[in-house]
Amino acid sequence: MNNYSSRLLEDAVNELTRLPGIGKRTALRLALHILRQDELYAGTLGNAIIKLRTSIRYCVRCHNISDEEVCDICSDQKRDPSVLCVVEDIRDVMAIENTGQFRGLYHVLGGIISPMDGIGPSDLNIDSLIRRAETESIAELIMALPATTEGDTTNYYLFKKLKDKVKTISAISRGVAIGDDLEFADEITLGKSIINRVLYEKLFD
Amino acid sequence: MNNYSSRLLEDAVNELTRLPGIGKRTALRLALHILRQDELYAGTLGNAIIKLRTSIRYCVRCHNISDEEVCDICSDQKRDPSVLCVVEDIRDVMAIENTGQFRGLYHVLGGIISPMDGIGPSDLNIDSLIRRAETESIAELIMALPATTEGDTTNYYLFKKLKDKVKTISAISRGVAIGDDLEFADEITLGKSIINRVLYEKLFD
Repeated sequence: MNNYSSRLLEDAVNELTRLPGIGKRTALRLALHILRQDELYAGTLGNAIIKLRTSIRYCVRCHNISDEEVCDICSDQKRDPSVLCVVEDIRDVMAIENTGQFRGLYHVLGGIISPMDGIGPSDLNIDSLIRRAETESIAELIMALPATTEGDTTNYYLFKKLKDKVKTISAISRGVAIGDDLEFADEITLGKSIINRVLYEKLFD
Repeated sequence: MNNYSSRLLEDAVNELTRLPGIGKRTALRLALHILRQDELYAGTLGNAIIKLRTSIRYCVRCHNISDEEVCDICSDQKRDPSVLCVVEDIRDVMAIENTGQFRGLYHVLGGIISPMDGIGPSDLNIDSLIRRAETESIAELIMALPATTEGDTTNYYLFKKLKDKVKTISAISRGVAIGDDLEFADEITLGKSIINRVLYEKLFD
């Protein structure tokens, strides 16, 4: 498609195409949808996008997104500040919050060490994590980084930096998902499931 | 997902979710992508969306979108104004233009008659089509509406209104797509292909 009849439409399609997973065809469908709605809708959507980027703030303590200087999670007095869960990005915070199983605080790295993408330790919120380990009384750090080479590299780097500053460092368990058939699990996951098996009496804790 | 930690993020996700085919999960992915880009990107995208809706114009002659009062196609002196192709929306104009096979002009209905959706003839650009049939010297109207019940209804309605005003009314051919195996074509399409067969000597025109 190259004939949009309108520069305005072409501009909108080109900008939408820069979003991940949005091709030319989808972008055109979205643009035509926006054209069919009233002006208020386009204004609300456009301004929500602009405000999101220009007005967003990050929690000074854990780097989660926040509308205040300190995020709702960090300022929640009912949570346990002695347990920190270290995650790659804010999406992971949301995913873990949705489980309702974690009552500690978070530390958002803002990425993981990835030499291929030119991301080193200094690009991530690692200095502030070390400072937290030194100044806050943290009993346990739970690493919840991706099970990839980059995740493992970051885990190892953090472990070396933090092992003398924190009593316990753990990682979330990996294994066959609940409800999945063993035959459909990939070999590496199934292997990990066997190695990290849980003692029968602990299963029903 | 219900814990976005930020009202700004929640607003952006909610607005993006109103786009067709964008669920909560995709909207969140798009919002986080926007957060990772520089402010210029969010500004350009947001403003392109707002400007698209507030500044777009429609060709007074054929109702195609246009940056001018009359669109590029209608004002192209090299095109044949005696042949009009009637289409549902501007996406169809783009699709036909991309074939490079049509040198006439268009008329964009802005939809098709659909009692189920509450769309009647008065909601569409039909009056202006009748006016064009009366005032422009049109030799042929080519109907290129969808092959659905609504498309057929609209075809029939337009045929009744226009048959005394235009010499020839035709419709685009339907049949098995070029390169498709017959066994994979649906029965209705294959049936139409047989009924609307083309004489051997016309095949190589």
